[in-house]
Amino acid sequence: MNSETICALATPSGGAIGIIRVSGSEAIRCVDTLFRAKTKKKLCEVKGGTFHYGDLLDQQGQLLDEVIVSVYKAPHSYTGEDSIEISCHGSQYILNKTLQALIDVGCRQALPGEYTKRAYLNGKMDLSQAEAVADLIGSANKASHELALSQLKGHFSSELSLLREQLLKITSLLELELDFSDHEELEFANRDELMGLATKIHERIETLARSFETGNAMKNGIPVAIVGKTNVGKSTLLNSLLHEEKAIVSDIHGTTRDVIEDTTIINGIAFRFIDTAGIRNTQDQIEQLGIERAYQKLNEATIILWVIDTLPTQEEVENMLSAAENKKLIVVHNKIDVSSQKISSEDRLIKETVQGIQEAYISAKYQQGIKELEEKIFAAANIPEITENSVIVTSARHYEALIRSDQSILRVIAAMNEDLSGDLISEDLHICLEQLSEITGGQITPNEVLGNIFQHFCIGK
Amino acid sequence: MNSETICALATPSGGAIGIIRVSGSEAIRCVDTLFRAKTKKKLCEVKGGTFHYGDLLDQQGQLLDEVIVSVYKAPHSYTGEDSIEISCHGSQYILNKTLQALIDVGCRQALPGEYTKRAYLNGKMDLSQAEAVADLIGSANKASHELALSQLKGHFSSELSLLREQLLKITSLLELELDFSDHEELEFANRDELMGLATKIHERIETLARSFETGNAMKNGIPVAIVGKTNVGKSTLLNSLLHEEKAIVSDIHGTTRDVIEDTTIINGIAFRFIDTAGIRNTQDQIEQLGIERAYQKLNEATIILWVIDTLPTQEEVENMLSAAENKKLIVVHNKIDVSSQKISSEDRLIKETVQGIQEAYISAKYQQGIKELEEKIFAAANIPEITENSVIVTSARHYEALIRSDQSILRVIAAMNEDLSGDLISEDLHICLEQLSEITGGQITPNEVLGNIFQHFCIGK
Repeated sequence: MNSETICALATPSGGAIGIIRVSGSEAIRCVDTLFRAKTKKKLCEVKGGTFHYGDLLDQQGQLLDEVIVSVYKAPHSYTGEDSIEISCHGSQYILNKTLQALIDVGCRQALPGEYTKRAYLNGKMDLSQAEAVADLIGSANKASHELALSQLKGHFSSELSLLREQLLKITSLLELELDFSDHEELEFANRDELMGLATKIHERIETLARSFETGNAMKNGIPVAIVGKTNVGKSTLLNSLLHEEKAIVSDIHGTTRDVIEDTTIINGIAFRFIDTAGIRNTQDQIEQLGIERAYQKLNEATIILWVIDTLPTQEEVENMLSAAENKKLIVVHNKIDVSSQKISSEDRLIKETVQGIQEAYISAKYQQGIKELEEKIFAAANIPEITENSVIVTSARHYEALIRSDQSILRVIAAMNEDLSGDLISEDLHICLEQLSEITGGQITPNEVLGNIFQHFCIGK
Repeated sequence: MNSETICALATPSGGAIGIIRVSGSEAIRCVDTLFRAKTKKKLCEVKGGTFHYGDLLDQQGQLLDEVIVSVYKAPHSYTGEDSIEISCHGSQYILNKTLQALIDVGCRQALPGEYTKRAYLNGKMDLSQAEAVADLIGSANKASHELALSQLKGHFSSELSLLREQLLKITSLLELELDFSDHEELEFANRDELMGLATKIHERIETLARSFETGNAMKNGIPVAIVGKTNVGKSTLLNSLLHEEKAIVSDIHGTTRDVIEDTTIINGIAFRFIDTAGIRNTQDQIEQLGIERAYQKLNEATIILWVIDTLPTQEEVENMLSAAENKKLIVVHNKIDVSSQKISSEDRLIKETVQGIQEAYISAKYQQGIKELEEKIFAAANIPEITENSVIVTSARHYEALIRSDQSILRVIAAMNEDLSGDLISEDLHICLEQLSEITGGQITPNEVLGNIFQHFCIGK
C-alpha cells in the first residue's frame, strides 16, 4: 500500500459542486496540510465514514474555498486505499487551483481509470466488474444500465467462478489420478461423470458466448433500417419514433443533454436507426431499391422497416424479401389517413407472398399507430427479459475469451471420447481455466489446483 | 421547517460521479425509502456528518446503482435543513432515474438557486453572501474568485453591519431625544459628534460605491481594445496574449473546457479584448482610424493598445490621443524584428506629442516583448491589491443600494447643517438604514432600533 497518492476531478466542472478524489497512503496527510476543519480537528484524527466542513487553502496559505471533506480509511474505500473526497464549489478556477495545491503537497494527477485499476489491484473488484464501472457510467438506457449493474454486482463473475470450480474439480481428479498412476491402479475420476461435467461446462460457455450478440446489440443499440421510396414518409416516421423519447427525457429533468440523434428507447431497449440517406439521395437507387449500396446498409440492420404508401410491384416485394433474409422485416403501411383504400390490396399482395410477415399501419404525420409499431419493433428484437441478475455478455473481450475457452473444453471432450491420456486432457483443462480467468483477471496458480484437491479429498486420511 | 423537500442534480452529468442533493424536513425519510445501506442501518438512525455505502432502489424495488449517501442533520447543512447528498455513478440514465425515484417518494425538483435561497431564509447566510455563491461558482480567475470568496466569507456584510450599527447609534440618540423632548430639556445627541459620525458613514459608503468600477471590471474582465491599421499584427498580438493562459490551463488539468476566446489572465486579473473586427474589415475606416464606429469600440475600453509598425502621421497621433482621452493608451511598436530602424523616429514623434505615454516594443510573431507588454497592460489597469479580506463591490444591485443610501446620508448631513428638526433627520437615517439593509436582506424593525437604545443606554437605571 505504498503507492503514489493520486488526485483527479471526479465530476465535470460547471455545476454547483465539484468533486476531487484523492487516493493513496498519503491522501489524508496531503489534504490535512491544506484543510482547516471548522472543528479544528485534523483529518488524521477523525473516523473514516465521516465528512467535515472547513476552509481549503493552497500551499501558501491562501484561501481557495469552503469545502466538505469526506474521509475514507483503507480498506473501506473505492480503491481500498486511504481516500479523500473534496466537495468544493464547481468553478473551473477553484477545481484547477485545488488540483494544483494537491500536486504541490505531493499528489500526482491520476491517469484515466487509475482509481478503478487500484480497486482491482487491491482486490475490491475483479476485471469484469472494473469493466462494468465504465459501462455503467456510459449506459444511456435501461437495458445497458441493467447489464452493467449486473456485471458490477458480480453476477457474471459468480457464473465464471462456478465454471472454474467445476473445471478445477475435473482437473484435480485427473491430476490426482496422474500422481498416483505409478504406484497403484486408482480411478479417482469416473470418465462418464467427467464427460457429463465437461459437456455441461461447454454448454454453459456456449450459451454465454451466444448471449454476446444480444448483449452487444443492447449495449450499442439494436440496428434498425428504415427503407422505402422517396416521399413515403421515412423521415417523418423517424422523427415520430425519436420524438417520444426526447419528450420523456425533458419531462424528468430540466437540463440539456447531448441527444444521440438516431437512437430511441422502446421499453428500455435502445434502437439505433441506420442512416439510409444514401438510398434517399439517388433517385435511381430509390426507385429500384435493388442497388448494392442500399443493401449494404440493410445488412448492418437486424430489423428492417419497409415504409410503403402504394402497392409495391411483385419484383419489389421479391427484392425486399431477398434483401431482408435472416432479418426481421416489418412492412409499414404509411399514410393510412389518405390511402386507406389501397391498404387492403397491398396487404393481400404481401401476405400472399410470405406468411407471418409483420405489418403495421400508421400515419407518421398524424402520429397514428406509432405506439403499435414500436411494440412490433420491440417484439422483432426478441429481447430476453433482463433483470439485475441477468448474465449477458456485453464485452468483445469476454466474448473472445469465452470462444477460446469453449474451443479448449471441446478439445477436452474430444480427447475423452478418443480416450486419450489424462495429461493431455489436463493441459486443455488448464488452458480453458486460464482463458476463463482472463475475464476476471484472476491468476490460476498450481496452489489453486492443489487447494482444490485438498478441499474435496482429505488425502492424509 | 415544514417546507417541501426538494431534490436536484448538483453536478453536470458525464463524470465518474454525479451528486444529487435532497433537502427538507422529509429528506432523510425519502432517501431511507430508497436506500439499503450495506450495514443495514436506516439513515434516520445514523448520526449527521456521516456517509454510508449501499444500494439505491427505485420505488418498485429495482436496483438503480451502488451509491454513497451523506447525511446532514439540521441545522448543520448548507440549507440549514435536514439534507442528503447521494453520490452515484455519473451516467445520465442513473441520475434521471434517481431524481425520478425521489420525486416518486415525495420530493419536488428544486428551482434554480433554491438551496441557497433556503440557506438565506434559514439564516445560514445573508443576501450578499448568497449572491457570492453564484459569483464564486462563476469566477474564472484569481481576482473574481477572491472577491466572491471575500463576500461569501461575510467581509462585505461585516462592513455593512458596522455602518448600520453607526447609523443605529445616531438614530437611537436622536429618537431618544425626541421621546423625551416634551418632558425635559435633554441633549442626548451632541450635534457635532453626530455630524462627525454621519460624515464618516458617508465617506465609507462613497468609497464602497466607488469600488464598484474596479469590482465590476475585475468581475467581468477589464476591457482592452487592440486597434491599428491592417497588417500591423493585431490578430497575431491577440493570439500571443491569449496563448499563454491557454497553455497554463491545459498544464494544470487534462480536461477540455469552454475557452472564453477573448479573455486572458494577467497576474490573476481578467482582461477582455474588445472585438475591433469592424475596424479591420472596412478599408477606409482602417486607413483613417477616425470613423465613428471604431471610436465607439474604443469607448467601451478602459485600455487601448495602439499597434503600429510604421511612423504614424501627426494627424493620426492627434486623432488617437483624442480618442483615447480618459483611457490608458499603450503604443505597441510591433515587428521590432524587421523594423528596428524606424522605431527611434516613431518613438520621438509620440514622446514629443505627449509626455509619459506608455510604449511597448514587441514582435508578436516571434513572441518577443509580450511579457513586458502584459506587465504594462496590468499596470495600466491600476488594480488595487486584492486579498480574501478585500471589500470591493462587484454587484450592480449593491452599487445602486449604496448610491441611494449615500444620497440619504447626504440629506442627513445637509439637514444637520441647516439645523432641521430631529424627526426629519431621523426619517432619512431610517431610509439610509433600509437601503443598506437591502444589500444583506435583513429587516430593520423598530425592535432593532429599540434594542440598540437599550444596549447603549440602560434607561431604567
